[in-house]
Amino acid sequence: VLESINLNIKNNSPLYIRICDFIKRDIENNILHKGTKLPSYRKLSEHLGVSRNTIEQAYQQLLSEGYVESRPKSGIYVADISTGIFSSKQHEEAIKINTTASKNIEKNCNYIDFSVSGIDTTIFPISVWKKLTNDTINNFQENLNSSGESQGEFGLRMQISKYLYESRGVKCSPDQIIIGASTQYLLYLLYILIGSDDYAVENPGYDRIAKILIDLSANVVGIDVDQKGMNVEALANTAAKVAYITPAHQFPLGYVMPVSRRVEILEWAVNNNSYVIEDDYDSEYRFVGKPIPSLHSLDKNERVIYFGTFTKSLLPSIRLSYMVLPEPLLERYVNKAEIYSQTVSNIHQKTVELFMDRGHWNRHLNKMRTLYRKKHDLVLSELFEKFGEKINILDAKSGHHVVIEVDGEETRLIAAALLHGVVVYPVSQYYFDGKSPKRTQILLGFGSLSLEEISEGITKLAKAWI
Amino acid sequence: VLESINLNIKNNSPLYIRICDFIKRDIENNILHKGTKLPSYRKLSEHLGVSRNTIEQAYQQLLSEGYVESRPKSGIYVADISTGIFSSKQHEEAIKINTTASKNIEKNCNYIDFSVSGIDTTIFPISVWKKLTNDTINNFQENLNSSGESQGEFGLRMQISKYLYESRGVKCSPDQIIIGASTQYLLYLLYILIGSDDYAVENPGYDRIAKILIDLSANVVGIDVDQKGMNVEALANTAAKVAYITPAHQFPLGYVMPVSRRVEILEWAVNNNSYVIEDDYDSEYRFVGKPIPSLHSLDKNERVIYFGTFTKSLLPSIRLSYMVLPEPLLERYVNKAEIYSQTVSNIHQKTVELFMDRGHWNRHLNKMRTLYRKKHDLVLSELFEKFGEKINILDAKSGHHVVIEVDGEETRLIAAALLHGVVVYPVSQYYFDGKSPKRTQILLGFGSLSLEEISEGITKLAKAWI
Repeated sequence: VLESINLNIKNNSPLYIRICDFIKRDIENNILHKGTKLPSYRKLSEHLGVSRNTIEQAYQQLLSEGYVESRPKSGIYVADISTGIFSSKQHEEAIKINTTASKNIEKNCNYIDFSVSGIDTTIFPISVWKKLTNDTINNFQENLNSSGESQGEFGLRMQISKYLYESRGVKCSPDQIIIGASTQYLLYLLYILIGSDDYAVENPGYDRIAKILIDLSANVVGIDVDQKGMNVEALANTAAKVAYITPAHQFPLGYVMPVSRRVEILEWAVNNNSYVIEDDYDSEYRFVGKPIPSLHSLDKNERVIYFGTFTKSLLPSIRLSYMVLPEPLLERYVNKAEIYSQTVSNIHQKTVELFMDRGHWNRHLNKMRTLYRKKHDLVLSELFEKFGEKINILDAKSGHHVVIEVDGEETRLIAAALLHGVVVYPVSQYYFDGKSPKRTQILLGFGSLSLEEISEGITKLAKAWI
Repeated sequence: VLESINLNIKNNSPLYIRICDFIKRDIENNILHKGTKLPSYRKLSEHLGVSRNTIEQAYQQLLSEGYVESRPKSGIYVADISTGIFSSKQHEEAIKINTTASKNIEKNCNYIDFSVSGIDTTIFPISVWKKLTNDTINNFQENLNSSGESQGEFGLRMQISKYLYESRGVKCSPDQIIIGASTQYLLYLLYILIGSDDYAVENPGYDRIAKILIDLSANVVGIDVDQKGMNVEALANTAAKVAYITPAHQFPLGYVMPVSRRVEILEWAVNNNSYVIEDDYDSEYRFVGKPIPSLHSLDKNERVIYFGTFTKSLLPSIRLSYMVLPEPLLERYVNKAEIYSQTVSNIHQKTVELFMDRGHWNRHLNKMRTLYRKKHDLVLSELFEKFGEKINILDAKSGHHVVIEVDGEETRLIAAALLHGVVVYPVSQYYFDGKSPKRTQILLGFGSLSLEEISEGITKLAKAWI
């Protein structure tokens, strides 16, 4: 069985869908016979070198499409499907059969995926990027031939410092900016500077942050989020010396931290001699009113570490993120800079510097903001039209996602959506410490979807759920 | 004083030389007057956002060129130089004065730098790289628009697995290969998989490895290196569960681990249920006889973690390194893959895949090998001709550096070389646990130097030292 699952990794749909498709093809072609036991999650995940979670998703998908069946305390077995209908020669005819099952098979490469990690790639100025990359290779061979400054190239840090001041009110010198390959890597670097103090994270919150800190043996405590963001009273009752928050657009719930709470958390940091990590992961996209200034801009006491990234606003592939260190940590960083060399391509660093310096960055951001505003507004109007009062929308008027509160059991809602060709995501995975939302919360990311897909996706959701 | 030191970071000479040059210019132009106290190492390092070590090097250089003088228990002061001679208008005349001091001033941008981190960049096929980068941007937009698989792109891992098998005898599937931005990042990831066991490193050895592990709160023990590499008897007397070694070309001493010692350390790993990290950092360049197979190729018990990098053999700027995990660790990795997303540019990953797939990699390696062999042979013949029996050469017949043993005090030898326009490096920094070599050891990296520079550099070294 293992050997017959030959994974074509070059395909571009989500991994679990691809795994699922290969198993389906083998079932359809009768290579995997009815009643055959599928490998365990563990075995198949080892064999393919992918996570168990991915295999679970793939099996879940097979289960919901009826290709396999679960036998309690035994495992997952190939179901009794009319293999004749699905044999590859007759496949074209089969998909004409107007049943839910065949409809899904027809469309399983066309799932509408409300993923939060997708971004719109249709308006990225590829030809500009290519031109500036060639400029870099032709004219900046010192960038090609060296990993550059540990901290990141000065020219790029200059551009970022200028941008942060103009758009986010963050006042910092280029010396305070550390470039790194992903927020995750920078969090590790920051941990090295701060040490194994207790860390507080939002609950619900960006689960990776907590996991990375736990892997580094830090004590991590989850602090409940209310509509103003992290509850500072609860925070003050812990031993935490560092608090990780997303004040501009709480992830996942979307709340914006009002200035009263901002002042409160800064006071906590000063009184407690602690730090606040402000992850401003998608603040480029604020659709209503003025952009909210960063927490960093309110901090007069060198207590805030600011995190930003180009992953969601420029190109995910170049892995370019940065953090702004306050003085006390900068001093420690300087002593570590020789050990921790730069992780971001020096070619890309120069290319982004040129991109920013020549005005393309601001132009691109404006276009993206307009596009995302349209998508955001469409998501809201479609949700209202199709669901009315049946759902509650937690809307932040910014970013690439909304959370909706729906009646019904989370896994059933997600499975029903899948059956209708729509992938939506559970918010429950972002809760920990045994917490969970009172009403089921579902995450809808719309960054990578077209306007048509958004309408179609929400229409299908309504069919699935109402 | 701080404000007047305006650092032009875009320049390409080593940072300490640039800092040094700016201070010199200010002294020459009488902006910094005779008797002015320079800022402390700490103050200047904070102000410029560079490491203290860099400032120390810069001040050391100013001291050795006589621009400043050290007053015991007080600090470093601008020396009494005939500023008239050095005023910027008369600078051209001044440099004609045939004294050691002016010669050095004239040439301070032309230091011959025997750095171990430099690589030859003259024969890199830039036009091929540019073409393949454009191919990637044009034809592989899925690479542009996503960070790709956590583990690294499958196509690139295929190419690496093929290369490792053919050139290093490493048998591994692409599933076992993890791509990451620098060896340092991969070491962190490995630490997350292995946990806080005790780690053994070579003494002397690559100091960063120990520092990174210590920053991660691991217990690190240094094990003495003899002419066969790490002493396994000493290793077995420790609680270490992981040993980091450089068997193909011990860093920095250059010894090659013979097969007897290899078998010994593998037996230690099996009996002790431990792992060996084999860092094969520059094994592409073996000049005499057959390449020595990797330790990995001798391992039948899934005990070796293999580290490789493209930094020294292709392009330092793209930050592309990899590790090969044995089964037990791969299983753990698979569960972490969703947290630790890929850190290397997906654009560069595809470009390197195309570079390898189309034969450019093997061609480039062959050219580099020929070039480095010439440089290596020249270093040896020049050293022999100029120094004869006065020095002892620890020669590995591979890689980009040699270590020489010389009579005299290390800092004095290095300062004398600097005065003659040559930068050489102390081996003592790679010893720890209070160890030090009996006879002074000096490191000469020759990767980035031309044949002419090698000859000139060693001639100057002989003048400085004999």
